[in-house]
Amino acid sequence: MKIDINCDMGESFGMYELGNDEEMMKYVSTINVACGYHAGDPLVMRRTVELAKQYNINVGAHPGFPDLMGFGRRRMTATAEEVENYILYQAGALQAFLHAYDMKLSHIKPHGAMYMMAMENDDLAQAVLNAVEKIDKHLPLFALNNSALARLGQEQGFTIVFEVYADREHDESGSIVMTRKGTDYTDLDERARRVVRMIKEGKVITYDGKDTSLKAETVCIHGDHPDAPRLAQAIITHLKDEGIEITSDFIVQQT
Amino acid sequence: MKIDINCDMGESFGMYELGNDEEMMKYVSTINVACGYHAGDPLVMRRTVELAKQYNINVGAHPGFPDLMGFGRRRMTATAEEVENYILYQAGALQAFLHAYDMKLSHIKPHGAMYMMAMENDDLAQAVLNAVEKIDKHLPLFALNNSALARLGQEQGFTIVFEVYADREHDESGSIVMTRKGTDYTDLDERARRVVRMIKEGKVITYDGKDTSLKAETVCIHGDHPDAPRLAQAIITHLKDEGIEITSDFIVQQT
Amino acid sequence: MKIDINCDMGESFGMYELGNDEEMMKYVSTINVACGYHAGDPLVMRRTVELAKQYNINVGAHPGFPDLMGFGRRRMTATAEEVENYILYQAGALQAFLHAYDMKLSHIKPHGAMYMMAMENDDLAQAVLNAVEKIDKHLPLFALNNSALARLGQEQGFTIVFEVYADREHDESGSIVMTRKGTDYTDLDERARRVVRMIKEGKVITYDGKDTSLKAETVCIHGDHPDAPRLAQAIITHLKDEGIEITSDFIVQQT
Amino acid sequence: MKIDINCDMGESFGMYELGNDEEMMKYVSTINVACGYHAGDPLVMRRTVELAKQYNINVGAHPGFPDLMGFGRRRMTATAEEVENYILYQAGALQAFLHAYDMKLSHIKPHGAMYMMAMENDDLAQAVLNAVEKIDKHLPLFALNNSALARLGQEQGFTIVFEVYADREHDESGSIVMTRKGTDYTDLDERARRVVRMIKEGKVITYDGKDTSLKAETVCIHGDHPDAPRLAQAIITHLKDEGIEITSDFIVQQT
Repeated sequence: MKIDINCDMGESFGMYELGNDEEMMKYVSTINVACGYHAGDPLVMRRTVELAKQYNINVGAHPGFPDLMGFGRRRMTATAEEVENYILYQAGALQAFLHAYDMKLSHIKPHGAMYMMAMENDDLAQAVLNAVEKIDKHLPLFALNNSALARLGQEQGFTIVFEVYADREHDESGSIVMTRKGTDYTDLDERARRVVRMIKEGKVITYDGKDTSLKAETVCIHGDHPDAPRLAQAIITHLKDEGIEITSDFIVQQT
Repeated sequence: MKIDINCDMGESFGMYELGNDEEMMKYVSTINVACGYHAGDPLVMRRTVELAKQYNINVGAHPGFPDLMGFGRRRMTATAEEVENYILYQAGALQAFLHAYDMKLSHIKPHGAMYMMAMENDDLAQAVLNAVEKIDKHLPLFALNNSALARLGQEQGFTIVFEVYADREHDESGSIVMTRKGTDYTDLDERARRVVRMIKEGKVITYDGKDTSLKAETVCIHGDHPDAPRLAQAIITHLKDEGIEITSDFIVQQT
Repeated sequence: MKIDINCDMGESFGMYELGNDEEMMKYVSTINVACGYHAGDPLVMRRTVELAKQYNINVGAHPGFPDLMGFGRRRMTATAEEVENYILYQAGALQAFLHAYDMKLSHIKPHGAMYMMAMENDDLAQAVLNAVEKIDKHLPLFALNNSALARLGQEQGFTIVFEVYADREHDESGSIVMTRKGTDYTDLDERARRVVRMIKEGKVITYDGKDTSLKAETVCIHGDHPDAPRLAQAIITHLKDEGIEITSDFIVQQT
Repeated sequence: MKIDINCDMGESFGMYELGNDEEMMKYVSTINVACGYHAGDPLVMRRTVELAKQYNINVGAHPGFPDLMGFGRRRMTATAEEVENYILYQAGALQAFLHAYDMKLSHIKPHGAMYMMAMENDDLAQAVLNAVEKIDKHLPLFALNNSALARLGQEQGFTIVFEVYADREHDESGSIVMTRKGTDYTDLDERARRVVRMIKEGKVITYDGKDTSLKAETVCIHGDHPDAPRLAQAIITHLKDEGIEITSDFIVQQT
């Protein structure tokens, strides 16, 4: 069995530092790099790509809404035309940095509100697909289980990679939900066992106590929490114990 | 004899319209497209590239400082690292739109204060060259006569294209100067004869009445003045009368 | 009978010009000035306030979402805390310019998506009221008929001024709706008669042909349409014919 | 003897945290609050003012250039008109938050590149003075020794407060210089004795080893260094030992 571990990176901006990018590089197989709209700037993108080169990690684009003040987490009534072109702009900017290091864009994972809206809304999901098609139709695209993006993407022959979360709660559809109390980092082994079960059994207990099915091809760990490295270590230990290989080979073979 | 005519385009932003892009497309052989820092946004970039495709015009990047409020015309003490990465970011973003229309980036022309600073300062000129090298060392790079950028670029084997201005005054070095009264659009034939002389004789009368030598491979006409189309028409008429072909073939052959 | 005529102004930004502010100053009794978030910048605000001083026009704040790219017209999931503080920030900035000309802020009218969301959502309506209370509880606040903002504002003793639109369609509630075809500027007399009827009879034909009641204390005319001055002139002619005085005295007496 | 201690605060932005504001509140008598151009946002400004109210600290405006990416530290060729209106805009925005807590603006201290440029350039110094005059001519204005701003301000009857730095090096003029090695936080007692000498003797050893005279009415301690609280504690201990009172009474009495 194989699993990809992904982490959002390059979220610093100017003087502002966010995340623990270099430490997290040790635990992941792919990273999603902020592209200057909700976070990140050209110098941060350059440093992040250089670091990924050094650690031999796959680099995908993490495009978001133009909302630095809200970190791209606020839904906005952007049109499909806006979403498509925001993704092209940001992915292209990242590709220039990758080209400078003889690297290629490995995947696309929209950020925050743009990601969630593309899961729920067919028009915006199609906008994301249109953008990916204009970059490279074979480029892997991360999506949540049972989402509009996954459904339309698979129908149209895109390479959908099913994503689950180590530090967020899922609902019955396999999507993620924001809970008031946030992520509990006290029992990291329990968190890690949960990840293993999603991979091996395709099942997870939802935020409201139900057992639901989902497909786990890539697991996201957020890097901005101080306990993120410890969570990553716990997950890696459990994956090794279960003989699950951490790799992105099976998802990025098309690029 | 051959000459390229270039025009800055895609300078609108959101609700704000600037320039007369579609009209100017009829008169030029290359355009320099704003990339979202000093002007332009993803939708404007998309429309501008689409228009250039339709008119079969070469598209170069026109990266500027992150200063929408000052339209990139204010000098700022950016470091060489910042200039290099600002250009990579913006050129990459534009390349994504070009790729969507099966087009290729034809050249780079930094905008406004970034352009002028790279003409005068060796460190920033080198930063521009470093960015171009990371995109494609053979990519034509516009520069003013007798500039740091042209000198260093030629020494290092870059493809420097010498630019003169139809609607700005030159100084004795061949560089351009901002004069208090601005451009005089009353005698367009005189403006056009001036352009012809720069191309045929390699000479121009400076803002302070001296006769100076320069090399003219591309002529810039600004598109945001209401009389810009009439100026362009006058120049084209005079170029035809003189048997000078308007084309960018001789500068973009490398790409 | 009396009516206030208001117009959104100061919507230019940097090099970008929008609207016909000086011309529209001749026809209105109050203006709503953009405060730098969805439009406007400090120089534009200064010029707009100076112009209002010269024409002796009341100046209100027109705060919007931080979305210059979308002109503040895109709804975003801002929290009540964000809306309250965005209004305080922008209104305060405008007050500095008014203070420089010995003028006082005459009213508040949120812009675009922020305005519409405060009409529909009690939490955001309360956020607007909280901001107004922190500036000056007696400050007139523009609101649409039958809105959450008007209802909560009146219940809590705020000075609500009911606004209708000369160049938008209303629905049965008295609110405005965006129609696909936009405003028809062909029969300006018909538009003007419609305004007169809203003022005199408190009635208007909705976008879908029904006759509905509303209260008209201030009429908004948008200044960015090329025919806006002609529409304003038609309205003024009709108001004079009907003996309706154009003034803001009755709404700004509290300040 | 009396001395004011000031600290730049409210420099966080959206998700990005910067500085140690609550801890530093314990050591200072005035704070300079970022106003959204180089740092800060409306929610951060609100929280910072609320904190200052709680700690009973004077709040001044810390306006900067519109350069969040460069934290306002990059010089830009802004005009006097731009500088004046940028200050009005930002100071006004802060005043709205102060008004909400029944507080008044205690002083103005331009930030970063804007501050340094106003020290060296008469036109920009005058722009700062023009802005202060339009807010309140009696408002204390922080300035470096031997600066254009201090000279013009005193000539024109403004209330200039001479500022020295606990964690920066001075030059022979009394101005500050950026040194390659940055501030040395290893011998905090030495730093504190240096501050005491500036206050008591009006003298300091410059970055290049000379003894120069200056006037110290307010001492700036930067809050973003992890050792800032320890430096502040050392300074306070030394000031107490010398019988120097920490207060802003003598500089803000005019407001």
